[in-house]
Amino acid sequence: MTVVQDGKPHENVQASLHEVQELLRKAELVESLVHKQAMPRHELVESLVHKQNLAALQKKLDELHPADVAYILEALPLEQRLKVWDLVKAERDGEILLEVSDAVRETLIKHMDSEELLAAAETLDTDEIADLAPDLPKDVIEELLASLDVQNRARLQSALSYEEDRVGALMDFDMVPIREDVTLETALRYLRRLKELPDQTDKLFVVDRNNVLKGVLPLKRLLTEEPEQTVREVMAEDVVVFHPEDDAHEAAQAFERYDLVTAPVVDAQGHLIGRLTVDAVLDFIREESEAEKLNLAGLREEEDLFAPVWKSVQNRWTWLAINLVTAFVASRVIGLFEGTIEKLVALATLMPIVAGIGGNSGNQTITMIVRALALGQVQDTNARKLLWKELGVAVVNGLLWGSVIGLIAWWLYDNVALGLVMTAAMTLNLLLAATMGVLIPMVMYKLGRDPAVGSSVMITAITDSGGFFIFLGLATLFLL
Amino acid sequence: MTVVQDGKPHENVQASLHEVQELLRKAELVESLVHKQAMPRHELVESLVHKQNLAALQKKLDELHPADVAYILEALPLEQRLKVWDLVKAERDGEILLEVSDAVRETLIKHMDSEELLAAAETLDTDEIADLAPDLPKDVIEELLASLDVQNRARLQSALSYEEDRVGALMDFDMVPIREDVTLETALRYLRRLKELPDQTDKLFVVDRNNVLKGVLPLKRLLTEEPEQTVREVMAEDVVVFHPEDDAHEAAQAFERYDLVTAPVVDAQGHLIGRLTVDAVLDFIREESEAEKLNLAGLREEEDLFAPVWKSVQNRWTWLAINLVTAFVASRVIGLFEGTIEKLVALATLMPIVAGIGGNSGNQTITMIVRALALGQVQDTNARKLLWKELGVAVVNGLLWGSVIGLIAWWLYDNVALGLVMTAAMTLNLLLAATMGVLIPMVMYKLGRDPAVGSSVMITAITDSGGFFIFLGLATLFLL
Repeated sequence: MTVVQDGKPHENVQASLHEVQELLRKAELVESLVHKQAMPRHELVESLVHKQNLAALQKKLDELHPADVAYILEALPLEQRLKVWDLVKAERDGEILLEVSDAVRETLIKHMDSEELLAAAETLDTDEIADLAPDLPKDVIEELLASLDVQNRARLQSALSYEEDRVGALMDFDMVPIREDVTLETALRYLRRLKELPDQTDKLFVVDRNNVLKGVLPLKRLLTEEPEQTVREVMAEDVVVFHPEDDAHEAAQAFERYDLVTAPVVDAQGHLIGRLTVDAVLDFIREESEAEKLNLAGLREEEDLFAPVWKSVQNRWTWLAINLVTAFVASRVIGLFEGTIEKLVALATLMPIVAGIGGNSGNQTITMIVRALALGQVQDTNARKLLWKELGVAVVNGLLWGSVIGLIAWWLYDNVALGLVMTAAMTLNLLLAATMGVLIPMVMYKLGRDPAVGSSVMITAITDSGGFFIFLGLATLFLL
Repeated sequence: MTVVQDGKPHENVQASLHEVQELLRKAELVESLVHKQAMPRHELVESLVHKQNLAALQKKLDELHPADVAYILEALPLEQRLKVWDLVKAERDGEILLEVSDAVRETLIKHMDSEELLAAAETLDTDEIADLAPDLPKDVIEELLASLDVQNRARLQSALSYEEDRVGALMDFDMVPIREDVTLETALRYLRRLKELPDQTDKLFVVDRNNVLKGVLPLKRLLTEEPEQTVREVMAEDVVVFHPEDDAHEAAQAFERYDLVTAPVVDAQGHLIGRLTVDAVLDFIREESEAEKLNLAGLREEEDLFAPVWKSVQNRWTWLAINLVTAFVASRVIGLFEGTIEKLVALATLMPIVAGIGGNSGNQTITMIVRALALGQVQDTNARKLLWKELGVAVVNGLLWGSVIGLIAWWLYDNVALGLVMTAAMTLNLLLAATMGVLIPMVMYKLGRDPAVGSSVMITAITDSGGFFIFLGLATLFLL
């Protein structure tokens, strides 16, 4: 046997995807004979070629890591996806459901009956069932709860009680507790008797007889320290500890900052109740950053690539409706100046430039401030400093780009005053953008709202309406 | 001693920040006496109060984790930042420089002389020096190279030869190799002799006498299997292995997909040359997602919150210039129809709505497609399916929102034809947005360019110019 050279998982899984698609294509070719009535259906089922195709497909799927099967399911259109799903071994259903995106999971679960779902869920750990639970029908969850022992039922119920963005929803229960008064040698014997340690275990959690956390024993200390010493002598007492109600985003920051692999989760009395692992944190960080990107583009949630049109429309309409309202407001601002535009139609031509650059500049400022707020680096003491800096940048950019476009306007329309109004309007709109770019996220933050959500729409609305008003207003005053 | 309850690192570090700021304020209060000439400078230096202040500050800094000191440095304006930096113990300079953002690192390094930099770098591992190197002056790097032994010099030179987004730039050299023919008992004794294992070690790397990787021995197997067995019997042979020239983005995906903590890095001949750890991957993922967010908003790179205005202008001007050009093109499109607008000024009022909604909708499509491309889920076979779906969504949204705004336009201007043109223009612009939203990223991908960079600017440029052209063009044909 040789080492599997798996340095390019992406290429490997793509090759697998192509292979699956090829096998599916072959299977469909045979099936199409039935559709064309060139072959009766029962012959298809009996057909050797068809059987071989499906067997090859199944074999391929069996060889793949659950995450890779999930990837393939996501990349296939609904019909093919369900065909592949049927070929996946029932005992792997659970772990694969955990790996697929929410949207695709929905399509798979819809295709399974209660019995299949129950069987799939029963192959999973309690914390994994909790991850799956929001998508399961109520009756399946009730049956699941009934089938668990007291401890696991309590764990599942508690895991279900936490919001997605809490440590309690991310933690698992695979901790290995140990007493502080035993020697390392005893600890080593104890581990050997366990036969198997949970994945990602890099430390044991030291507890007293009441299950109160006393410290942690990193495996590397267990391996390098003298075996005669007691756990108490060797354990680390300065431990990063989480509570189930802690913000998962903060926990993720702690994992990054202190390079953690696992960390204990304790209740208010210090009892060890679970652990947080870096792979859960990694998934959380990825999901968080995906969600941010989708939100920025106005997609409510991750979309199944092959979702029906109507589902996609639902995912996208909120954002379009909000933008329609703000665009309409901006349009009414222009409406105020229809008399002015009628007299100088060049204004209609130039006004989108003022509004557009204002929006771009405002979004730059907001991105800076939102980031600084998320890192907790903005306080009342330096807020004024930040505002001054942004205003400074706005003045420089406004005069610079305003002059460029002002000169072009002068040259195009042979009208100096028009050029000057353009420059002035650009500078003023960038100042507006800078002020609002600092104020909007800071006010949202003070009000306890997430400054990352909606700030961008608001700044664009303001710089659009404001830009039109400033430019057309100045024009009305100075050009007519 | 008790367990440090550190569940809320964010709150803890913020409290530290406030404390540092308070101590700085006190120190500045005393210093201001010198400025006001109420006290001669030498008395300040001698002053007990001042000494106590600085000592308290230094003590506070000494207690903090390097990542937390870095956080505080980033949150302070330049002058205070340098004051704090001077108080940080020289032997901690290196690890803190590693933790601060690029922009802030620049301000700190500028403040240090070659000797200080050399001393700071010498406290670091070879892979850490490589991370710092791009910001160090050339003479410091040359002196560093000269001070290293042959193996470490070769490692540093090789690490420096990889781009930031390659595995070779992320890997470290803290691997623990072991032979396959020894027993677990021998392995355990060997580890105990080492006294110390590198952070994040979750497995040993099994190599032959030529340093060719044969497999890995997870610590948990070492701990649970019978000690009489040989490493060969117990080791895992299906290992995820990376090469230094592998794409770091793909490596990060592999870490997520296969829940890795560490993985060996081998050269083309299979020789073990380094390892990749989950904390390096976590940092990479965070930086990547930060860079994406900044790019989306048109910020070239992470900005020091307290950067001088001129530096910020440089960071932002490219994006503004590009947008100015696209806005100017759109403006010239409007210019073509000035005659039409003169006759029906309502067109000027309504046109930004058509352009704006087109831009929003196009960005939704592009975000979807860029994501699917990044995951490798789009191929020629399903590209047409995707395009049809997006066109379907565009028709529904166009007719829906186009009718809403068409009805409003009819009501506002008492002009049915204007309302109909509005609806038609909206639908057509959304169809344009959908087509381009699918085509732009796919063509960029085929041309080997990153579809995430610039797609958004292009789609907005097209839907702006296109929207104006479609709306004003239809109006010219049907309303005059």
